[in-house]
Amino acid sequence: MTVLVLTCEEDLTADMVVAVLHDLGVPLVRLDPADLPGRVHLSADYGTNGFHGYLRTKERMVSLSSLRSVWVRRPGTPGTRAEERSTWLTMESEQALYGMLTSTRARWMNHPAAAAQARYKPWQLHIAQQSGFTVPATLITSFPAVARQFADTYQDLVVKSVSGKHPDDPPLVLPTTRISPDADFTAVAAGPTLLQQHVRKGADIRLTCVGGRLFAARKEADLQEVDSRFAENGVWKPAEVPEHIRRSVATYMTTAQLAYGAFDFAEDANGTWWFLECNQGGQFAFIQLDTDQPIAEAIAAWLAADPLA
Amino acid sequence: MTVLVLTCEEDLTADMVVAVLHDLGVPLVRLDPADLPGRVHLSADYGTNGFHGYLRTKERMVSLSSLRSVWVRRPGTPGTRAEERSTWLTMESEQALYGMLTSTRARWMNHPAAAAQARYKPWQLHIAQQSGFTVPATLITSFPAVARQFADTYQDLVVKSVSGKHPDDPPLVLPTTRISPDADFTAVAAGPTLLQQHVRKGADIRLTCVGGRLFAARKEADLQEVDSRFAENGVWKPAEVPEHIRRSVATYMTTAQLAYGAFDFAEDANGTWWFLECNQGGQFAFIQLDTDQPIAEAIAAWLAADPLA
Repeated sequence: MTVLVLTCEEDLTADMVVAVLHDLGVPLVRLDPADLPGRVHLSADYGTNGFHGYLRTKERMVSLSSLRSVWVRRPGTPGTRAEERSTWLTMESEQALYGMLTSTRARWMNHPAAAAQARYKPWQLHIAQQSGFTVPATLITSFPAVARQFADTYQDLVVKSVSGKHPDDPPLVLPTTRISPDADFTAVAAGPTLLQQHVRKGADIRLTCVGGRLFAARKEADLQEVDSRFAENGVWKPAEVPEHIRRSVATYMTTAQLAYGAFDFAEDANGTWWFLECNQGGQFAFIQLDTDQPIAEAIAAWLAADPLA
Repeated sequence: MTVLVLTCEEDLTADMVVAVLHDLGVPLVRLDPADLPGRVHLSADYGTNGFHGYLRTKERMVSLSSLRSVWVRRPGTPGTRAEERSTWLTMESEQALYGMLTSTRARWMNHPAAAAQARYKPWQLHIAQQSGFTVPATLITSFPAVARQFADTYQDLVVKSVSGKHPDDPPLVLPTTRISPDADFTAVAAGPTLLQQHVRKGADIRLTCVGGRLFAARKEADLQEVDSRFAENGVWKPAEVPEHIRRSVATYMTTAQLAYGAFDFAEDANGTWWFLECNQGGQFAFIQLDTDQPIAEAIAAWLAADPLA
């Protein structure tokens, strides 16, 4: 049984997991969907004996029925490295590849359908509340007057991206920004805006969930910096996970049908962890490098697990 | 409790269903997501009492907690009718709207996650086989040699779009086309290609499934035309649904988590219905106009049903 890793060519984070899988002696195929068609080939036939398919890269060929798991890391867009690129080719290639892969019995980290749903920030906040997390008062609105009223109530505010695009994605960086309660909110009418009560935090918490295993890390907050997740200063240190957080994480992951999730919390002076977001495709290498927590090992173990076990 | 209809302004098919809902006295809001922001406004807040949101159009305001169902007909893309259009605005608006809507308890026809999965043609064929339908031998491949071998085996072939884009979507029309077994298949390497055994059909069957209700219609095939679904000639007439087809449809709909599906079959000389595709957003007005089958009425009844019943 083979592990399929979908990611781009230069992905040092994937390299960490691949190295562990090699050590474990687990067969794996790594490919970038951007290389279909051209350097990645596929075939599936539907006959009287059901559905049979396979993938071929330069190095390997793998039957779809022998896939044990699929890890969606940082896959490129199908068709984008072809000689004649077009929207049509991308659609056809994307449908062929993911249509075949989702027809297999492989376990997914994460399944594309679950991943798409889990990216919705308004849904994240809702599921977080339902899972028992402490969620900062949040407003998503296109009504300037409602934004004005929210600012009057909470005074100390931040504005964020609704779509929750992470600074991991360079084209769409919008860090969380603190705003004055006297701000002019008329621009809210031009697009839905997310305002959130500013949590006065003593530390950032990153909790990485891999299957049932949790790895939490704490970094003392730089008080000058609102969105200190990506600040240069400070080092991540391992943190204990409170029991009630453990239960909420389990509920969240089950509701969202995720195998992997990177939760961001703000820890206040009372030690309360305020839920900020759960990034289903969040980075983990920077945590592992600081804390020595074996996250790559946990991912490899999850991917390598016997699907019938 | 209110029904939400997401569709563009000029949609005669939606008008049919809306008219029935009006007759039933069911409150409804119809809006085009393309009008957010600008003519459609939204707001949601997450506080200590959970999540509360509402939508406002020119005519109406509706609380998200009072939504009974959402009908995704032909919605425009959020942000595309704004004064200052951008990919960013579309993403933010799309995330705000669908993130909020998928957080409600409303029933969906169809849920966006299920719809996205159900569009995958390779997955459709797999689920169809698993549901017990008779599926024509089909190959999806980027290997010219495999295509060549398939053609040698089946001789009489058609080529289709993998992504299964329907002629409903004008920009991407690719009707099913008959090809010669002597064709040159080298171009298959340039993009995954779907080849299918040509079913010699006596009639086209369109089966529309609305919740648990099935409406089948038959049209005698024009033998000159391979893809006669959209041919000018012929009239659709009501057809009986064989019991085994009824069971397979139920399995398919449950597996795919769909509330609505438009199945296309080719009926051969033996009366066998060969599964061609299931379009989760397929048209039905042309069937209703020919057959007088009350499909719009069934959709309205499904949307109007008590969610707690």
